[in-house]
Amino acid sequence: MKERGLLIVLSGPSGVGKGTVRKELFSQEDTSFEYSISMTTRKPREGEVDGIDYFFKSREEFEELISQNKLLEWAEYVGNYYGTPIDYVEKTLSEGKDVFLEIEVQGALQVRNAFPEGLFIFLSPPSLSELKNRIVTRGTETEELINNRMKMAKEEIVMMDAYDYVVENDHVKLACERIKAIVIAEHCRRERVAPRYKKILEVE
Amino acid sequence: MKERGLLIVLSGPSGVGKGTVRKELFSQEDTSFEYSISMTTRKPREGEVDGIDYFFKSREEFEELISQNKLLEWAEYVGNYYGTPIDYVEKTLSEGKDVFLEIEVQGALQVRNAFPEGLFIFLSPPSLSELKNRIVTRGTETEELINNRMKMAKEEIVMMDAYDYVVENDHVKLACERIKAIVIAEHCRRERVAPRYKKILEVE
Repeated sequence: MKERGLLIVLSGPSGVGKGTVRKELFSQEDTSFEYSISMTTRKPREGEVDGIDYFFKSREEFEELISQNKLLEWAEYVGNYYGTPIDYVEKTLSEGKDVFLEIEVQGALQVRNAFPEGLFIFLSPPSLSELKNRIVTRGTETEELINNRMKMAKEEIVMMDAYDYVVENDHVKLACERIKAIVIAEHCRRERVAPRYKKILEVE
Repeated sequence: MKERGLLIVLSGPSGVGKGTVRKELFSQEDTSFEYSISMTTRKPREGEVDGIDYFFKSREEFEELISQNKLLEWAEYVGNYYGTPIDYVEKTLSEGKDVFLEIEVQGALQVRNAFPEGLFIFLSPPSLSELKNRIVTRGTETEELINNRMKMAKEEIVMMDAYDYVVENDHVKLACERIKAIVIAEHCRRERVAPRYKKILEVE
């Protein structure tokens, strides 16, 4: 029996650049994990290809999959459904390959419930670490701007709690390097490696 | 106040190649952690320089440091003392830099007690993962050889339990890449990042 792959979930606040990081990752040759294509009921945009950018489905087809529990996570945005087909994820993991999802925070929470052993990475806006400087050098920005940013930052920090890792999206390429390092490191975790070795010895 | 650096401990069974991996790591320009030089009472070998390869001390000086609790870990091998001066480690960590130790397994257990928050990496012989093939293709090796290897492997797996990560030393450069990935990943762990962000917000 093959060892199962890792489920890698990249999420974070909207606008943080999840899609850009995902595209950069999958344009790099040494990226060793498989991208799980999302399913949607929205119409394809110019240049988008079914089965590459998304699986494009009708509302009826999508709702049928929901009722059959065939989606690992799903949500409705602005009148369209978006979701992750569970079959591809299960099949790829059972082949021993790592699967990568790039999804919204509500979706990530659904996946966490179904796959607590998954690898949850929170992509954080670079401004969070810049916040301190802004506060310290108060005067260059208005009180209202700082207070708004503080409120958002507090919400982002609460979101983080459901994740294993936080990757700052200061530069897209740096963020990708950190994500790949996290995947390599996770494959070296003793809790994952030792049982494999123990199984080898049980052959005796 | 600066955030403390990480204490990285590389250890593993004798003969696994810890020294070779450490030398390769510190010959690479992008290695971002500081090497903690060991202290010893053995005589310098041809070409070894005090303060670079080791801190060379007399037995009296070494025993004085032991009695003053100035060593993070120490042991006696073949009539000579070897140990890690605690001052350098503490100073470097408090400057926010990561410190790297390459030590024997008994030493690593001493450090684990003093620094449970450290990063403990077990360097494992590549033969452990080859073991299964050897068992499966029995006949190419004697029963005695396989049994000896099995016994050693069982001891190695017991040793692993005190570590966070297991890095297979199949190729020195690959082992170095994994170690550097582990350090990058650990800096992204939510348990390390979130408190930093929370502290920023407490400034308010």
